[in-house]
Amino acid sequence: MTLRTSNQLFDAYFTADSMAEVFCDHGRLQGMLDFEAGLARAQARVGLIPPAAVAPIAQACLASLYDVDALGVAIASAGNSAIPLVKALGKLIASEDANAERYVHLGATSQDVMDTGLVLQLRRALVLIESDLAQLGEVLAAQAQRYAAVPLAGRTWLQHATPVTLGMKIAGWLGAVTRSRQRLAELKPRLLVLQLGGASGTLAALGEQAMPVAEALAAELRLTLPEQPWHTQRDRLVEFASVLGLIAGSLGKLGRDISLLMQTEAAEVFEPAAPGKGGSSTMPHKRNPVGAAVLISAATRVPGLVATMLSAMPQEHERSLGLWHAEWETLPDICRLVSGALQQALLLGRGLEVDPARMAHNLDLTQGLVLAEAVSMVLAQRLGRETAHDLLERCCRRAVAEGRHLRAVLADEPQVSAELSATELDRLLDPAHYLGQAHTWVTRAVTDHFALSA
Amino acid sequence: MTLRTSNQLFDAYFTADSMAEVFCDHGRLQGMLDFEAGLARAQARVGLIPPAAVAPIAQACLASLYDVDALGVAIASAGNSAIPLVKALGKLIASEDANAERYVHLGATSQDVMDTGLVLQLRRALVLIESDLAQLGEVLAAQAQRYAAVPLAGRTWLQHATPVTLGMKIAGWLGAVTRSRQRLAELKPRLLVLQLGGASGTLAALGEQAMPVAEALAAELRLTLPEQPWHTQRDRLVEFASVLGLIAGSLGKLGRDISLLMQTEAAEVFEPAAPGKGGSSTMPHKRNPVGAAVLISAATRVPGLVATMLSAMPQEHERSLGLWHAEWETLPDICRLVSGALQQALLLGRGLEVDPARMAHNLDLTQGLVLAEAVSMVLAQRLGRETAHDLLERCCRRAVAEGRHLRAVLADEPQVSAELSATELDRLLDPAHYLGQAHTWVTRAVTDHFALSA
Amino acid sequence: MTLRTSNQLFDAYFTADSMAEVFCDHGRLQGMLDFEAGLARAQARVGLIPPAAVAPIAQACLASLYDVDALGVAIASAGNSAIPLVKALGKLIASEDANAERYVHLGATSQDVMDTGLVLQLRRALVLIESDLAQLGEVLAAQAQRYAAVPLAGRTWLQHATPVTLGMKIAGWLGAVTRSRQRLAELKPRLLVLQLGGASGTLAALGEQAMPVAEALAAELRLTLPEQPWHTQRDRLVEFASVLGLIAGSLGKLGRDISLLMQTEAAEVFEPAAPGKGGSSTMPHKRNPVGAAVLISAATRVPGLVATMLSAMPQEHERSLGLWHAEWETLPDICRLVSGALQQALLLGRGLEVDPARMAHNLDLTQGLVLAEAVSMVLAQRLGRETAHDLLERCCRRAVAEGRHLRAVLADEPQVSAELSATELDRLLDPAHYLGQAHTWVTRAVTDHFALSA
Amino acid sequence: MTLRTSNQLFDAYFTADSMAEVFCDHGRLQGMLDFEAGLARAQARVGLIPPAAVAPIAQACLASLYDVDALGVAIASAGNSAIPLVKALGKLIASEDANAERYVHLGATSQDVMDTGLVLQLRRALVLIESDLAQLGEVLAAQAQRYAAVPLAGRTWLQHATPVTLGMKIAGWLGAVTRSRQRLAELKPRLLVLQLGGASGTLAALGEQAMPVAEALAAELRLTLPEQPWHTQRDRLVEFASVLGLIAGSLGKLGRDISLLMQTEAAEVFEPAAPGKGGSSTMPHKRNPVGAAVLISAATRVPGLVATMLSAMPQEHERSLGLWHAEWETLPDICRLVSGALQQALLLGRGLEVDPARMAHNLDLTQGLVLAEAVSMVLAQRLGRETAHDLLERCCRRAVAEGRHLRAVLADEPQVSAELSATELDRLLDPAHYLGQAHTWVTRAVTDHFALSA
Repeated sequence: MTLRTSNQLFDAYFTADSMAEVFCDHGRLQGMLDFEAGLARAQARVGLIPPAAVAPIAQACLASLYDVDALGVAIASAGNSAIPLVKALGKLIASEDANAERYVHLGATSQDVMDTGLVLQLRRALVLIESDLAQLGEVLAAQAQRYAAVPLAGRTWLQHATPVTLGMKIAGWLGAVTRSRQRLAELKPRLLVLQLGGASGTLAALGEQAMPVAEALAAELRLTLPEQPWHTQRDRLVEFASVLGLIAGSLGKLGRDISLLMQTEAAEVFEPAAPGKGGSSTMPHKRNPVGAAVLISAATRVPGLVATMLSAMPQEHERSLGLWHAEWETLPDICRLVSGALQQALLLGRGLEVDPARMAHNLDLTQGLVLAEAVSMVLAQRLGRETAHDLLERCCRRAVAEGRHLRAVLADEPQVSAELSATELDRLLDPAHYLGQAHTWVTRAVTDHFALSA
Repeated sequence: MTLRTSNQLFDAYFTADSMAEVFCDHGRLQGMLDFEAGLARAQARVGLIPPAAVAPIAQACLASLYDVDALGVAIASAGNSAIPLVKALGKLIASEDANAERYVHLGATSQDVMDTGLVLQLRRALVLIESDLAQLGEVLAAQAQRYAAVPLAGRTWLQHATPVTLGMKIAGWLGAVTRSRQRLAELKPRLLVLQLGGASGTLAALGEQAMPVAEALAAELRLTLPEQPWHTQRDRLVEFASVLGLIAGSLGKLGRDISLLMQTEAAEVFEPAAPGKGGSSTMPHKRNPVGAAVLISAATRVPGLVATMLSAMPQEHERSLGLWHAEWETLPDICRLVSGALQQALLLGRGLEVDPARMAHNLDLTQGLVLAEAVSMVLAQRLGRETAHDLLERCCRRAVAEGRHLRAVLADEPQVSAELSATELDRLLDPAHYLGQAHTWVTRAVTDHFALSA
Repeated sequence: MTLRTSNQLFDAYFTADSMAEVFCDHGRLQGMLDFEAGLARAQARVGLIPPAAVAPIAQACLASLYDVDALGVAIASAGNSAIPLVKALGKLIASEDANAERYVHLGATSQDVMDTGLVLQLRRALVLIESDLAQLGEVLAAQAQRYAAVPLAGRTWLQHATPVTLGMKIAGWLGAVTRSRQRLAELKPRLLVLQLGGASGTLAALGEQAMPVAEALAAELRLTLPEQPWHTQRDRLVEFASVLGLIAGSLGKLGRDISLLMQTEAAEVFEPAAPGKGGSSTMPHKRNPVGAAVLISAATRVPGLVATMLSAMPQEHERSLGLWHAEWETLPDICRLVSGALQQALLLGRGLEVDPARMAHNLDLTQGLVLAEAVSMVLAQRLGRETAHDLLERCCRRAVAEGRHLRAVLADEPQVSAELSATELDRLLDPAHYLGQAHTWVTRAVTDHFALSA
Repeated sequence: MTLRTSNQLFDAYFTADSMAEVFCDHGRLQGMLDFEAGLARAQARVGLIPPAAVAPIAQACLASLYDVDALGVAIASAGNSAIPLVKALGKLIASEDANAERYVHLGATSQDVMDTGLVLQLRRALVLIESDLAQLGEVLAAQAQRYAAVPLAGRTWLQHATPVTLGMKIAGWLGAVTRSRQRLAELKPRLLVLQLGGASGTLAALGEQAMPVAEALAAELRLTLPEQPWHTQRDRLVEFASVLGLIAGSLGKLGRDISLLMQTEAAEVFEPAAPGKGGSSTMPHKRNPVGAAVLISAATRVPGLVATMLSAMPQEHERSLGLWHAEWETLPDICRLVSGALQQALLLGRGLEVDPARMAHNLDLTQGLVLAEAVSMVLAQRLGRETAHDLLERCCRRAVAEGRHLRAVLADEPQVSAELSATELDRLLDPAHYLGQAHTWVTRAVTDHFALSA
């Protein structure tokens, strides 16, 4: 608990500050305290407790009033964080207003406090993630359009193939962002629900006033009232974890692409430079992809954490032991890692440095072979498909065998030169003229983005 | 491929036959062949290939015409299943109509074939899963209503707590089913999309006719045209895998509950009996939960497989090596395991055997303690909350210490007997009168179910 | 770094303090600083740097001298923790002795610092885990012997089967502990190795003195010199993670058993009581298994983390980006979770409360059926196996059908009473006489334990 | 079970045939039947059953005599594979020798059959894996020596760094292979153990002859007798799974390296060519890394499967439901995937194609910058470390800024040319002279390999 055992050396690198705040100890406590304050207000509203009890309770529901270390120790005996907090809360209220203390936590169970507190934290997390994703969408949409006509080698199996454009590549990243924004919008009503069930989930202790209290509390906290308490039905939380897993994976793909394009041998795209960032004094040519590293790292770590959340689903009866506990740090860790990946993706996306000349240079590394298909297509219309195909295949093989450029081999081939002028050949072997629907893909992805953001 | 290396001993136990058929070798081949036949039709429709070529191509697009063993061997060289299949398809067509062979697979790449083929399989899988889930919803809704008023011990941390009802427990299972049906409905438009991009995803080889072909093919196959090819944007597939993971987890919870309730010490609920099912000739009292075992097993296996799908997301550039390969057997395995779990859940749900008398008996195992809260609530209204709470706490402690029933201890306590008659005490200590909103939860879950199914 | 973002609410519950200290921020820094101090000493020893430089360097190698917050921020730019630390170290030395500063970190690369620092932390972690495991072995050996003759129901598929003893059950837990102690002993020489390779792993910058420096540094730090630097060969670390995973799993099994035995319906074994531990004021009968919850939670969380470590193995070339980063918090988290599980297992093991009377009571829940096999075995010798088996099966069925005790049914059966006297029947239906090799198993496990500890 | 539902299209690509045979349906059945035959022999040896019963039993213990389809259906009711097999075995024996049938499976439980059968399969799997690993060690040792002096760019963070040698890189792969061979040797005595416990693990049904039977059976099957039955202590199996996970990870690293070196932009190392292997008719320059894909795929899939095995460890009491089931297909799948990866690694290792000229060319891509350190080291001895370092840093920056070769910039710099002749500069900027201990690393790894293989 003390500085001596702090464990946050990599937090600034792997986690957005804003998300670290949501899930810090105070964030957890405040979530639970907001539940207790809300419960008192709701119970006063329906007449279950005296209105005068609300203020003393609400005033004590401030995380900074509590000793996190002491609570941590008590948790180790209690087996959850709600029992010690409610005890401490009661003591604090009692010290001001002995009467009010009797109205705290009425009819609620520990898991009501912890789960609703968590949902309140997740709502804050969701705001951050949705905002970052929306911004990332904006950035990628702009970059996709900016580079919509910049060709670079398509690469399949890490081998050069027919050309693509950088814009189309970025539009691919954008599409995944847009889809995950849709997913978050869809799951939100399932996720942002109240947990209130009392000891075994029946709310029996609240008697006739159970439903009025539940409805009032949901309204107080601006949460939906679920079809029943979900103490051991955890699919809502795990769904959120899974979609965060999808986001981590999609950002990992972005980071993977950038790190490969930054390779010394490729050198087509770079992370934005900054003083001291990813540099090496002894090797000034190095541009270490320190941002992409975070994206790949998150995409490597989150799958295991999502698996933990899934593994913890078969919770026993009305409250689990152990499986519920397995969620407590895992879901926050997922949120944290995804926030860090988003933070880096935004930096990367905004500051992307692009070297179109190098892309053009690399496109020619195979000496025209990646454009053989373009020539073949045109010849097919004049010579017939099969003849054209055989002819090109022969020329390609010769180009490889003789180490010559396909352009030169084709020019030497009478069957080709009979059909195609030098100008035509030049045009066909220009990547800019063999980009197919690359521009369409950009337009479609950008349109989807704006449709969602509108 | 031969019997010698067949590996299906547990298929009937762990997988629904219908799902095994979707993902058998023939299912895979047929998916790919449906793509090729559809492509020919689409290209003929837009005038890219002669109409006469369609029939010879379509006739060869029948999985049973191919030698699975030979294809398997060729895959090991080719590195994917499309190259050998297209080669074999070409040969077969050529043997009938040499001309038509030239129009096969025009402008498509291997991954177009494999991915679209997979999507066609997934559509079949989705139909099966949605149908099973809908049926399971029906079954659980009926059972929840049937047992809406049957009390049993609530159990938290595997310890008895205040009573719940079996109907409410079943309604909890139902709620998770309903939510996952919503999830499938939401993801379906994202999942059921065409894959068509050609070599690097630009469709350049199709020239001006690229979009018309893509639209016609999507229409042929009744798939949506996505915003761009998704060769290395795999979130659609992984999202489906994740939701299947949620279903596996929710069914695992159902299986966990049933297996615990079937324990010799609890003996409250049983899997349906069948000759030879889960029995033991030497121990005739045994009722092994062989169905619940499948549910728990699936909930244990699917998380790791979902993690694999998530891990495989950061795919390189325009086509991945290795990460794409990691999906090929993993996603089908997830479908298979979930189908098997659904199959068993339906059996369990339909044939559930319930022993309400034993539930009543077990509810009394703590000699009334689980109902102390009920007495406390009533006394609070007469003696004040604090006095009532202290009084009950004292009585409970005495009941435990003296090994007596709480009813007897309370009757002995003058402060209690002054307020509560013997009849009142009996009523308060009757679990059936302390079920809170258990019935409401059933109604709400059933209502949600019918709202979705309507 | 500040209290505001501390995130340690559950540390006391889930982590042993001693392990938290090993992997806190200071622990990480000290590991790296120990490397730097050792490197200076080694290089002075072989004459590469002046002896006078050692003291100023060594004096600055104290974690408490550094500003963790500032380092955290710098890490986010540098992409690793060594660059900022070495920079800060240099500055600190320079402020005392400008000359000495030039001799810091000579020929080493960032990963040398981080990996060797980590290995030094892991050595401390290993001491803690081995010590805890040895103690747990002691405790379990003692308890296995203590309860070697206490029968309880064997339970297969969560159904009662023939009796076992509590000692045998505990001996099972012990066996797993002993095997994992062997595993740790075997992997230790592989794990505790120096990392020193310089920029790309060749140690070229150290010229002729490379091997002497490497050997001297290994000696300084009491680490083995590996066959070559292992910057991207991470099997050593992942092996350790995996064995910790095995330990977590074995402790999870222990926790699972105890939590099941503590069920209200079973009530045979309990976690040690302590004031405020796992209790519930409203339900004084509750004994929540708060220790077992930690064991099950760790066994649920560690598998996903081990999978992350395995997933991060295919690291690129001479230094990975992203995959290496994925290890930084994951391996410490595994150590932490296992330390917490060990801490709870020791508490549980030492304070185990056992109710042999309840075990005897529960053994009779099936009214003798679990001992049918015992009767059958004896009758087989007199009536022949088949006749005996059929006879018993018939009697068992009748006992179940009529709800009578098997003892009574057998007594009624002329074929049985002709062979077995009432005394003989009583003896055969006494679980204490049908325990097979239960005692042998205890002896064997305890013997293995002592053989290892000797 | 029929061809219709066969599911083996990718088997030849992802699995070694030999391993597929170990874990095919017949392999599973034969393992269990070997247990039954061994049990009969052991029981006859100790006099528990008549010697005449052995032959009829043993003759029926042949997998090919059984109907796999029918067994599969029966498994779905029985909940495991032993009950139906033992029943079918009994029937088959009875049809030949009614008397012998009574002596089958005496005192054993289903899990004894399944687990021991599995261990017998794992022993075969281990032989295959150890043999492949030994061969891979041989191949890599030879290649490491062959290419011990061939320089190529070191690459950290996918950026060029100081040179390494291909031999050293291969030696790194070799080291991991050697360590995993040690691990397998160490775990073998723990893994290859008998499972024999009877109904609840006490062997009570075998009475006084329990230990003699157990010892005789262990001897029959050449397995070790463990300290006690391990029906719910699964660490032995999971340890094996974990080490296979390490192997998959190490092979994934090998595949990752090769796939990166094969990139069109690098083109330094290639998988062996073979007709139709990884080729593309339209793009003849393509050399798809179809073998590396298998290595990366296995390294992506196995972690999730290992996590499943770990997750399944907390098995209940004396026999688990669901967790045990989760192992049945998972552990075989791990063996299969690792066998396939080994098969491809052997192909790759043996047929590796290397282009040293391209390596030399690529080494110069940064125009000498990767060798700045070499110049700096020599100048430091003449000008002092700091002066040398500053000088070189300045020259490097100028080289980058002016797009010139570092050699040229250095030659222009009077402070440099005053100290170093043109010949000296040439030598310092020759990668072959800045390889540090690269050769030592090869020697050490090869020595370790031969020490183990001796």
